[in-house]
Amino acid sequence: MGKVRIGVVAPASSMDRSIAERVAALAAEHGGVELVFHPQCFESWGHFAGTDQARADAFVEIANDPGFDAVWFGRGGYGSCRMAPLALDRLSPSAKDKSYLGYSDMGSLLAGLFGKGFERVAHGPMPADINRGGGAAAVARALAFLADGAESALERTVRGGTPSVAFNITILCHLMGTALQPDLTGHVLMLEEVSEHLYRIDRSLCQLTSVPALRRVAGIMLGRCGDIPPNQPEFGQSEEEVARHWCAVSGIPYLGRADIGHDADNKVVPFGSWPWVV
Amino acid sequence: MGKVRIGVVAPASSMDRSIAERVAALAAEHGGVELVFHPQCFESWGHFAGTDQARADAFVEIANDPGFDAVWFGRGGYGSCRMAPLALDRLSPSAKDKSYLGYSDMGSLLAGLFGKGFERVAHGPMPADINRGGGAAAVARALAFLADGAESALERTVRGGTPSVAFNITILCHLMGTALQPDLTGHVLMLEEVSEHLYRIDRSLCQLTSVPALRRVAGIMLGRCGDIPPNQPEFGQSEEEVARHWCAVSGIPYLGRADIGHDADNKVVPFGSWPWVV
Repeated sequence: MGKVRIGVVAPASSMDRSIAERVAALAAEHGGVELVFHPQCFESWGHFAGTDQARADAFVEIANDPGFDAVWFGRGGYGSCRMAPLALDRLSPSAKDKSYLGYSDMGSLLAGLFGKGFERVAHGPMPADINRGGGAAAVARALAFLADGAESALERTVRGGTPSVAFNITILCHLMGTALQPDLTGHVLMLEEVSEHLYRIDRSLCQLTSVPALRRVAGIMLGRCGDIPPNQPEFGQSEEEVARHWCAVSGIPYLGRADIGHDADNKVVPFGSWPWVV
Repeated sequence: MGKVRIGVVAPASSMDRSIAERVAALAAEHGGVELVFHPQCFESWGHFAGTDQARADAFVEIANDPGFDAVWFGRGGYGSCRMAPLALDRLSPSAKDKSYLGYSDMGSLLAGLFGKGFERVAHGPMPADINRGGGAAAVARALAFLADGAESALERTVRGGTPSVAFNITILCHLMGTALQPDLTGHVLMLEEVSEHLYRIDRSLCQLTSVPALRRVAGIMLGRCGDIPPNQPEFGQSEEEVARHWCAVSGIPYLGRADIGHDADNKVVPFGSWPWVV
């Protein structure tokens, strides 16, 4: 059997070359994997890893190339909502056969791919996670998922038969009302957040649970909400109390905590039902 | 002629009594105005000026009381999206005869009132603006509008015949997809922001200009975006370049700057066409 070929692109913020070097070394240790960083990953245009067109082009190039098995998003930051409309309509049948993995800002693109019927879209660690404490484990988890479909990489509840999706809370809010808003009917919706005040988490969950189409999810699981800045005044509720509140108000079942977040423990959540059958 | 009676409530965060005292003194100077601060303004429940129910009840009490001519929102903060669904369906015909004035977080409630066909809803200064440098002018402007319908209080472009609305960018984003999302067809949409990074302003305007229903506005005017934290890396575009970009991408006319913002110069924008005829 040949190696699994994984192409890395950066649809949002620019990557440091040192990330690529360290992740390439881990991939070599893993074996059975060939990792190709598209030069676009290291471009820079203001806030972004190249212009919207350059980021869209690099993504489409790798996604449409039958020589690759997977597209791995290099890092988050901000920018995938800007390039998604320039990319999604140019994807070929070969793009549909690949796996896609990323999280955070990549949620815009994951939602767009999911909305187009792509069946191998997943929320999980990215190369830039190597910079976290314990980040090598996150990267190894992502490689195990992309190369071997390893069940050990998965969030523990995704094998239950109910289809799942996972999103960053803020990113999902910014998809509401747009063409990228995903149809999550019948899916368990796992949500995570980072560096947002509790009042903002509350405001976001107020919105999400108020959107009629989102009330058709099978339930909500709350991932980790990391690095929450101090609320002024004290908010008076924890993030889990906030999630329980909005689930109760909206009639959406609250299904407990999800093992995802902006951290090295972030597990993989394949969109839809696992195991994928394509 | 009797005095114009203005009731003040706080649908979001709690108010300090010193604000009430200083604004009452200004109202006494103005003359022809009776200002009544509902005791709910000074309540405290975690982040909020009382529970959701208490804030909704106080708002409905003043709005439905034929003895008041106007409802003035005391301050923003966060919380009007939480109480709006507990209040809007309880408003009586008497509520429809009143003027409503506020901005920032109050956008959720302004949108809800506008969506119910209320014809005297306006975006403008609140009592808490007294705490800004030059804030007395902002409060006097609001009083001149509420008590006298003074044209001098208005944003300079609202007398052109085209109906207008104004919102905080982030608040409007969080209304997308919910029952509070307003129908802005044919309206000039004025937008302002405070304390958000440029990448967040960009992300929000990407969303708003991507929502099909919002593409039916007559145009967008950009108010002031105050206290923008430093972007990392340098964003590479000003907030006006960002607004122009998204207008160009979406085909929405960009109509220039609006004289609104989180500051003492914030002018009044009556929703709909001015002068109001009710």
